Amino acid sequence: MYGPVTLYSFAGGTEGEWAIRSLEPVCGEPIACPARLAISVDTSDTPGDSQWCLRGVTSNLRYTERGEVHALGKRGNLTGRPEATRAALIPIRKSAQWWALAQDERRAVFEEVSRHTSLSLPYLPRIARRLHHGRDLGEPFDFLTWFEFAPEDEPAFDTLLASLRATREWDFVEREIDIRLALCG
Amino acid sequence: MYGPVTLYSFAGGTEGEWAIRSLEPVCGEPIACPARLAISVDTSDTPGDSQWCLRGVTSNLRYTERGEVHALGKRGNLTGRPEATRAALIPIRKSAQWWALAQDERRAVFEEVSRHTSLSLPYLPRIARRLHHGRDLGEPFDFLTWFEFAPEDEPAFDTLLASLRATREWDFVEREIDIRLALCG
Repeated sequence: MYGPVTLYSFAGGTEGEWAIRSLEPVCGEPIACPARLAISVDTSDTPGDSQWCLRGVTSNLRYTERGEVHALGKRGNLTGRPEATRAALIPIRKSAQWWALAQDERRAVFEEVSRHTSLSLPYLPRIARRLHHGRDLGEPFDFLTWFEFAPEDEPAFDTLLASLRATREWDFVEREIDIRLALCG
Repeated sequence: MYGPVTLYSFAGGTEGEWAIRSLEPVCGEPIACPARLAISVDTSDTPGDSQWCLRGVTSNLRYTERGEVHALGKRGNLTGRPEATRAALIPIRKSAQWWALAQDERRAVFEEVSRHTSLSLPYLPRIARRLHHGRDLGEPFDFLTWFEFAPEDEPAFDTLLASLRATREWDFVEREIDIRLALCG
């Protein structure tokens, strides 16, 4: 019904198979910290009990070049692995200054300067990820990135996140929330 | 209310300030040809009488590089000029093959091979344009391009359109409608 892209809704409330272990506003306006996260696909319904509902679509690649697509494909990136019982949802909004850049300028900051893909590549397939775009939907966050990993890989995920936050690209991040989750048995 | 992007709705029905002079399905599934087009901004309401309603958001540039942004800016691109009493709305959907390309591959087809920006540049500011993105919204068309011009510039617009349709980029277009309009006095 929603065409070639897939709409994901992340609802924070009292229901859902993921327990929210922590919710930290990294920068910008915070959001409430409910007990559970419910994920649904291709529906605009919001669970009645939810304190917030964030939405985004999986869409085409915006910066990744062919060589990088191959390199990423070789590493593998699979969500839903049985051992991946921990997850992180990182909603981000970038500044108006970022969005006013031309495509070549954004690409240069993203990869040539900040090495976003190169930094992330070694963490695959252990740290699986799925990117959702919310900006064209009028959502409060431009991106919702979902990361999934085994409990023993969370320190590696923390290292990846610290590396990314130290890049020039993150100078353009004006709102960020760090939500950590555990799959409920 | 809709964030930094602007949502445009184009409703075909019996109301609206633009009269539909012609509606030609260029390729792919056609749509009905109503009498009028009503344009509204930042609302998801559909006029009750409409036969169809197409939506898209003005968003950030996807392929345009800094040098091209400057060149386009110098020419000017202004909608709403009093002499621009003719318009065209061109809804387009590109193929799955297009969207599976990496960013550098799409850019190469768009500009290095097809000269999309270079071909269009000489027609500014006479043929003003506004691009709306619908793909992430789950819309039937990936792009709705709105062109506005004086009646005497319609032959120039036809030439521009023929040039673009002859490019390699258009091999990836699987659905296209050509809607011509006149402003109602």
